[in-house]
Amino acid sequence: MSPSQIPLKVRRVPIDTHSENVAFLRRDCPLYQAEGLRALTKIEVSGRRRHLLATLNLIEEPAAEASCPALIGANELGLSTEAFDRLGLEEGCDVTIEPAPPPRSLSAVRQKINGAVLTAQDYQSIVEDISNHRYSRMELAAFLVAAAAFMTTEEVLALTKAMVAVGTRLDWQREVVVDKHCIGGIPGNRTTMVVVPIIAAHGLAMPKTSSRAITSPAGTADTMEVLCNVNLDMAAMRRLIHSESGFLVWGGHMKMAPADDIMISVERPLGIDTQEQMVASILSKKVAAGSTHLLIDIPMGPQAKVKSQVEAVRLRKMFEYVGTALGLTLDIVITDGHQPIGRGIGPVLEARDVMQVLRQEPDRPLDLEEKSIMLAGRILDFDPAVPGGQGQALAREILRDGRALAKMEAIIAAQGAAPEPCQLGSLTRDIYAPADGTVVVIDCAQMNHIARLAGCPMDKGAGIDLFTRVGQVVRKGDLLYRIHACRSADFGFASQAADENIGIGLG
Amino acid sequence: MSPSQIPLKVRRVPIDTHSENVAFLRRDCPLYQAEGLRALTKIEVSGRRRHLLATLNLIEEPAAEASCPALIGANELGLSTEAFDRLGLEEGCDVTIEPAPPPRSLSAVRQKINGAVLTAQDYQSIVEDISNHRYSRMELAAFLVAAAAFMTTEEVLALTKAMVAVGTRLDWQREVVVDKHCIGGIPGNRTTMVVVPIIAAHGLAMPKTSSRAITSPAGTADTMEVLCNVNLDMAAMRRLIHSESGFLVWGGHMKMAPADDIMISVERPLGIDTQEQMVASILSKKVAAGSTHLLIDIPMGPQAKVKSQVEAVRLRKMFEYVGTALGLTLDIVITDGHQPIGRGIGPVLEARDVMQVLRQEPDRPLDLEEKSIMLAGRILDFDPAVPGGQGQALAREILRDGRALAKMEAIIAAQGAAPEPCQLGSLTRDIYAPADGTVVVIDCAQMNHIARLAGCPMDKGAGIDLFTRVGQVVRKGDLLYRIHACRSADFGFASQAADENIGIGLG
Repeated sequence: MSPSQIPLKVRRVPIDTHSENVAFLRRDCPLYQAEGLRALTKIEVSGRRRHLLATLNLIEEPAAEASCPALIGANELGLSTEAFDRLGLEEGCDVTIEPAPPPRSLSAVRQKINGAVLTAQDYQSIVEDISNHRYSRMELAAFLVAAAAFMTTEEVLALTKAMVAVGTRLDWQREVVVDKHCIGGIPGNRTTMVVVPIIAAHGLAMPKTSSRAITSPAGTADTMEVLCNVNLDMAAMRRLIHSESGFLVWGGHMKMAPADDIMISVERPLGIDTQEQMVASILSKKVAAGSTHLLIDIPMGPQAKVKSQVEAVRLRKMFEYVGTALGLTLDIVITDGHQPIGRGIGPVLEARDVMQVLRQEPDRPLDLEEKSIMLAGRILDFDPAVPGGQGQALAREILRDGRALAKMEAIIAAQGAAPEPCQLGSLTRDIYAPADGTVVVIDCAQMNHIARLAGCPMDKGAGIDLFTRVGQVVRKGDLLYRIHACRSADFGFASQAADENIGIGLG
Repeated sequence: MSPSQIPLKVRRVPIDTHSENVAFLRRDCPLYQAEGLRALTKIEVSGRRRHLLATLNLIEEPAAEASCPALIGANELGLSTEAFDRLGLEEGCDVTIEPAPPPRSLSAVRQKINGAVLTAQDYQSIVEDISNHRYSRMELAAFLVAAAAFMTTEEVLALTKAMVAVGTRLDWQREVVVDKHCIGGIPGNRTTMVVVPIIAAHGLAMPKTSSRAITSPAGTADTMEVLCNVNLDMAAMRRLIHSESGFLVWGGHMKMAPADDIMISVERPLGIDTQEQMVASILSKKVAAGSTHLLIDIPMGPQAKVKSQVEAVRLRKMFEYVGTALGLTLDIVITDGHQPIGRGIGPVLEARDVMQVLRQEPDRPLDLEEKSIMLAGRILDFDPAVPGGQGQALAREILRDGRALAKMEAIIAAQGAAPEPCQLGSLTRDIYAPADGTVVVIDCAQMNHIARLAGCPMDKGAGIDLFTRVGQVVRKGDLLYRIHACRSADFGFASQAADENIGIGLG
């Protein structure tokens, strides 16, 4: 019997190591010396035809006088909580371990590090290994940085296809399933919540799964949650598509793109944000979500993710090439990304803007309305039954005559209206123009920063209410924006940040 | 008092996480929610003006019925063993924690990911952060892969200088301190153990610190350890330079190149092995070791690290440029890397070869002798007192007349002779020529593989004794090599590997 066949009892160690599988072995375990294991060795854990790769941490044997047993026994193998769940065996089951060979696809990663163009098969193997948690964060970083150095458009397509292949793909049983995606970066910009009710009121299926804020003050899911429940299971979503043709829910728990979620957990802290990886991430998610027709909004401006027409066109072409090869019908629109859209920044304030537009209140933010009608119109143009070029007029009509509002109310009721509405933060600070002048720039990054300091997105009622636009002539002392916060510490941080840099440039 | 100022008691958690600092916090610790911490967040631990960055793992609160206390209490912060040592506080000391900002030099890493040429200041910041353990393995991989994509020669110099700056630099109080380095890849090739006694017998200072095997069957330190102690402290090394002008010790515990050790721990598993990183790693270590004159041996051959003259010349020039800028006097020699040097592969067998050469036994391996004389001669040519071009003749004379052997015996005695000599593995398997023919290739990788399976380098007596050379005419049934092993399991693995591929090609 080789050392690796000596069984150990598996134990759940109550340590959360997040996305990385960690196994714990006692240094006095007979296997430790026999197999030449060291801390951070990758091992393969096997039992009952299940296998798991994990990084090994070594636990010292307890001192003889210790009053309590060690974390694990000398003939036990501990697994961190998520790793234990992933292996899926009961505590006390026999497992064997052996030093794991590096994931086979790592040889392709080494080639990529050395500048090679990889094949579709390489990407398939890499993405399978990633989605099966066979890569450490170190190995993920190596792959993602090497891929960030350069990828051909063919490689982007291969990566995207591989990411689709390892996930599940939703089927809404409708021939046309529309979706929209904005590549982000602009505060406010809550068009999705106006577009979905317009499209659903027309009768096209628009099952909208959105994200929560990660680096921004609010994601669409955070803002929709001001109005209603956004945690729906598949059955509820299917009912909503059947009854209302649309919904607006949080998609984060659906694990539709397992490889993408893992890759993003490394891309984000490293600040890897290439067009290639954006295209693969977005399109693989949309295909997994069952979309057939997709409108992509690329805001362009000096502070937006995309800063020039050249960049915007390159990104548009990459979306078109990869999306078309995946069988999606795409429309891509490059929009004005110079300043926030709407007046509110923060969930409650943004939800207010959206409802003002849907209710057609006289005081509604017209920039949000116009952008929403334009986007909804282009989506309606996907419908073969809509006469060419009539989408926008139709969208405007659906909004004007109250059908969009009625649809939104129906969706809110069906998703489960919020028991009591979130309140706007009651601590307020008004920021005034320091001089006469014309507003020449609204610094989106600083607006986001202040709103997050004020408590967004955790405090839904926190945020910024903007009372000015680029191009407006202001007099010294005119109100530029109002900060809302719910807690005094946050209020202090946000006020201080605004004092240091109000984020609005006058010329 | 902000949450981050609430003190926790520091506890040593008996878990070895190797090079990565890991901190453990209970999920029910009041700080956990207040600070928005998540598993894998990087935190900064501070106490008594000491600071440490660590990756956070979360520990679940124990069940109410648990009979034993949890690994740590709710108001304690656990640290993995190495992290605890690095922080250097007593158990029970108060520490505070806060989410750590990413290392400031990561912005330079992001630029490198995007293809920028970094400044000397950037490399200085990066290497300082690395040597202070501020980088996770993920961040290290990102830097190293981005740097592997391309580096200018100026960047290699800047990286090397930064690596020197963060380490200590030994001073041997001698004007000329010589060293040699082989970039490796060839089995046997134990020239260092012949060269050092020749040079030291001549009187040049050669303080030789060597590595142990990592992926090969034996490092020079492993082989020297067959004969004597190789773990010397600084005081003992200084005495040896004074009394014998040379020594041969293991350098791994000296931590002369703290950044390099950390980088190598990521480069190795990822297979990052660029010329740029090799130059920075080797030269920074040699400068730290106090060398003034350095001979670099670049074996070239189809199975060596360097496969072509073009590659070899590029590497030579990079060594010259960076080494000269660092104030080193360099000589670089490109040698034949087609086959193993000497007969033995494995510590005991290689030590036998070395002693045969030093003792000038009739049966000694002449290829090892000739290469050693050539290398020693070029090092002797560094000595201003040696007439130009006379180094090699002088080296041969020192070896022939027994001065090299006497010096080796003196060094062995001074380092502390091994109490009892390691025995050659008594389990042997002879591998015979399967047919008549001429030896056209000896597969170095397969020889290394078989030797390691046989037990190298842990079992010093394991290995391969080679009885043939490339170009030799053999008859079917002639002895090609003998496998030695100490344990039957290893013996079986090595024999099986040789049966599958004997590693010697006949033509």
